[in-house]
Amino acid sequence: MATKQVPYKIYLSEEEMPKAWYNVKAHMKTEHAPFINPATMQPCTKDDLRPVFCDECIDQELNETDEYIGIPDGIRDFYRTFRPSPLIRAYFLEKLLDTPAEIYYKFEGNNTSGSHKLNSAAAQAYYAKQQGLTSITTETGAGQWGTALAMAAAFFGLHLDVYMVKVSSEQKPYRKEVIRTYGANVIPSPSDTTEAGRKILAAFPGTGGSLGCAISEAVEKAVTTPDCRYVLGSVLDHVLLHQSVIGLESKTALEKYGVTPDIIIGCMGGGSNFGGLIAPYMGERLQGKNNIEFVGVEPASCPSLTRGKFAYDFCDSAKITPLAKMYTLGCGFMPSPNHAGGLRYHGMSPIVSQLYHDGYLRAVAVEQSKVFDAAVMFAKCEGILPAPESSHAIRVAIDEALKCKEEGKKKTILFGLTGTGYFDLAAYKQYNDGTMTDYVPTDADLAKGFATIPDCPVNKGAL
Amino acid sequence: MATKQVPYKIYLSEEEMPKAWYNVKAHMKTEHAPFINPATMQPCTKDDLRPVFCDECIDQELNETDEYIGIPDGIRDFYRTFRPSPLIRAYFLEKLLDTPAEIYYKFEGNNTSGSHKLNSAAAQAYYAKQQGLTSITTETGAGQWGTALAMAAAFFGLHLDVYMVKVSSEQKPYRKEVIRTYGANVIPSPSDTTEAGRKILAAFPGTGGSLGCAISEAVEKAVTTPDCRYVLGSVLDHVLLHQSVIGLESKTALEKYGVTPDIIIGCMGGGSNFGGLIAPYMGERLQGKNNIEFVGVEPASCPSLTRGKFAYDFCDSAKITPLAKMYTLGCGFMPSPNHAGGLRYHGMSPIVSQLYHDGYLRAVAVEQSKVFDAAVMFAKCEGILPAPESSHAIRVAIDEALKCKEEGKKKTILFGLTGTGYFDLAAYKQYNDGTMTDYVPTDADLAKGFATIPDCPVNKGAL
Repeated sequence: MATKQVPYKIYLSEEEMPKAWYNVKAHMKTEHAPFINPATMQPCTKDDLRPVFCDECIDQELNETDEYIGIPDGIRDFYRTFRPSPLIRAYFLEKLLDTPAEIYYKFEGNNTSGSHKLNSAAAQAYYAKQQGLTSITTETGAGQWGTALAMAAAFFGLHLDVYMVKVSSEQKPYRKEVIRTYGANVIPSPSDTTEAGRKILAAFPGTGGSLGCAISEAVEKAVTTPDCRYVLGSVLDHVLLHQSVIGLESKTALEKYGVTPDIIIGCMGGGSNFGGLIAPYMGERLQGKNNIEFVGVEPASCPSLTRGKFAYDFCDSAKITPLAKMYTLGCGFMPSPNHAGGLRYHGMSPIVSQLYHDGYLRAVAVEQSKVFDAAVMFAKCEGILPAPESSHAIRVAIDEALKCKEEGKKKTILFGLTGTGYFDLAAYKQYNDGTMTDYVPTDADLAKGFATIPDCPVNKGAL
Repeated sequence: MATKQVPYKIYLSEEEMPKAWYNVKAHMKTEHAPFINPATMQPCTKDDLRPVFCDECIDQELNETDEYIGIPDGIRDFYRTFRPSPLIRAYFLEKLLDTPAEIYYKFEGNNTSGSHKLNSAAAQAYYAKQQGLTSITTETGAGQWGTALAMAAAFFGLHLDVYMVKVSSEQKPYRKEVIRTYGANVIPSPSDTTEAGRKILAAFPGTGGSLGCAISEAVEKAVTTPDCRYVLGSVLDHVLLHQSVIGLESKTALEKYGVTPDIIIGCMGGGSNFGGLIAPYMGERLQGKNNIEFVGVEPASCPSLTRGKFAYDFCDSAKITPLAKMYTLGCGFMPSPNHAGGLRYHGMSPIVSQLYHDGYLRAVAVEQSKVFDAAVMFAKCEGILPAPESSHAIRVAIDEALKCKEEGKKKTILFGLTGTGYFDLAAYKQYNDGTMTDYVPTDADLAKGFATIPDCPVNKGAL
């Protein structure tokens, strides 16, 4: 609980912005299992990864020991265009719920990409530039990541090719246009610019594409283009590292007012926002310095932690990436159309997966219509129209606050508000029209996905 | 010039938020001419206005003497959800332009409505609630104002009917959806819910509507509904008063670093953002305390100050409002399709018009394609995708900074960045595709508009 009057928004000064990211792996009891090269079935070496990723990102990916990793001035400079982000006390929501709980949220949506994705985009574009590269590639589905990387590429002066899932580029023409405005090249995927794309087009003429296919195209483009690398927006350890800036700023802001959260809540897709938000608090927890409850929220339609298997799986559906040990629904799992595009991923960050497996966090799956109930309630009293992804965390924060009311308990709740819903209004329209439906996969649906988890030596006994 | 290192963003604390608005009229040498009731050709009395507007807004509209008017706590509470807004030093833009000028901008786009409009929406909704009203009405074209008022109505618990120009509600379905999400009722105009709408529908079946028609419908609905009033988003004195919060915060923030602007630049539609931004500085200028240059920027396609007439005219094209003395292109002027919807207004705030007439400010008209050049340059280095309206100010700020470079002069430039362009991506698409065109009305085009200025007794000699 706060020891002095907390303003509605706590802004750190620019000097108080973190000078180093926090690497939670330094304190994990169980190191997560290494990435496996599917060609050799041996742990990936730096050399395996070098043709695909920037050198510095590979070093960070494999760093298990350093608790802090410095943020270069060039990245902190760019961070100043949108950070520090506000830590907000949800006074109006508390009043509406009439709860004894104190509710805080870290708002990462006040930038043109509309989400936290810019934290890692900035870092990865900077390192690419420092390495002397001239271009980068990536894929995007919902478009937040593509937008964020386009902004970072423009700032640091890099060419960017974004392979955008074809159906998304048609359904979200405005997202595509933001990316183009920042000077990036948008290629609807599958395309005829890569071998992988041409194969898919030949096999499935007229297909709307998939994230798996877009990843294949972006990686192929990177490894076949001089001075070019591929960049990924979630799941990997170095992305979680960059996102720790969310948790670090939150902690600094709350400590100014003597506040320690009792419970921290975040939505989970690939796990980077949630992993970043909890990082410094989890680090303390792993050292026995707090007893905070960590809650990850996933959509009931894509329940990788609550109903998935802990096994080695590919990170993409085209099976071209290394194998990662994680909670997964199977790389061939086809999530239903669900408006939280950013949470529609078959796997989960290996760090978050390991922490969950070791019992350090709780996972909750929620249904879409209840998520939008919470989103609209929140928008009306707090003023911010939240992204469907972020609204998963709002839903559970409200549920926890109402439980406090029922039980007459005071608790301090912190949740991550990862982004805004300005480009998600087709989903809000369905909600407003009363035509939104929920979907929960049956056990038979899940079984089909599980069948696509590779039955390889490293999975002996896990399947 | 700054006396100490200025951070990228200056945020005031919530205690530093203005406790009173600034009424520039208290120091104007020439009071602007009174509104005229077209039925009597006499100055409007409070009683004339009472059926249409909230009582408190009418008092503010006619207040020529009080320099400060207190902001009630209820409004300051709501302001805390999105204010104080950041005052930003454009370090990255300065570097790109390689200019000796210091450039600052006040960013009003960090809220869900995406613009400064929320400043007055909050005040007007609050006063309506305090007066015991249960509902309010308004019109919206581009949709920023409708969104802002929907947010304020939701916060204060009022029913809101938004008459949205039919063609806009079809071209901007997402804007419409934000308004609906905040619980307001969106009625495409012309509609069959009012006498005015039915008449237009009968005369022009299939029409896409106009702002003039939507105003008529909203006013009719207000005066024929119990406990209901009409609310306007620009032009009027009380709206400029509410927008003075922009200038007051800017001044407080700059004074912390010993900065006084040499030149202040804002875009102009109805004039409320520009009037609010310059208010406290203009107040000092009128008292001989500074010599700041004030520059209003309008689109070359709708040049009310630079090519209009200073005369009494209706505020709407349906000729149902009082007559206001202002610079006008004629209430029947049909501006060309121009992407800065918020600047497509035939007239100009009477306060801004009078100040211009008395020589206290300069006006510049700029063409659309040059405005978008500036917008994209700004987005890439400063990170914010600006609204087309706001980009008019960016264009002139860049031009002034480049002039400083040419002349080797140091100047401090302040401009207003009124909003974000997230809902304007159809315009950016035209720019990205290279299909954007400019339009400047001919003298003959203007003559047609001027012919619609009423030839009434109060205009004797002016036409």
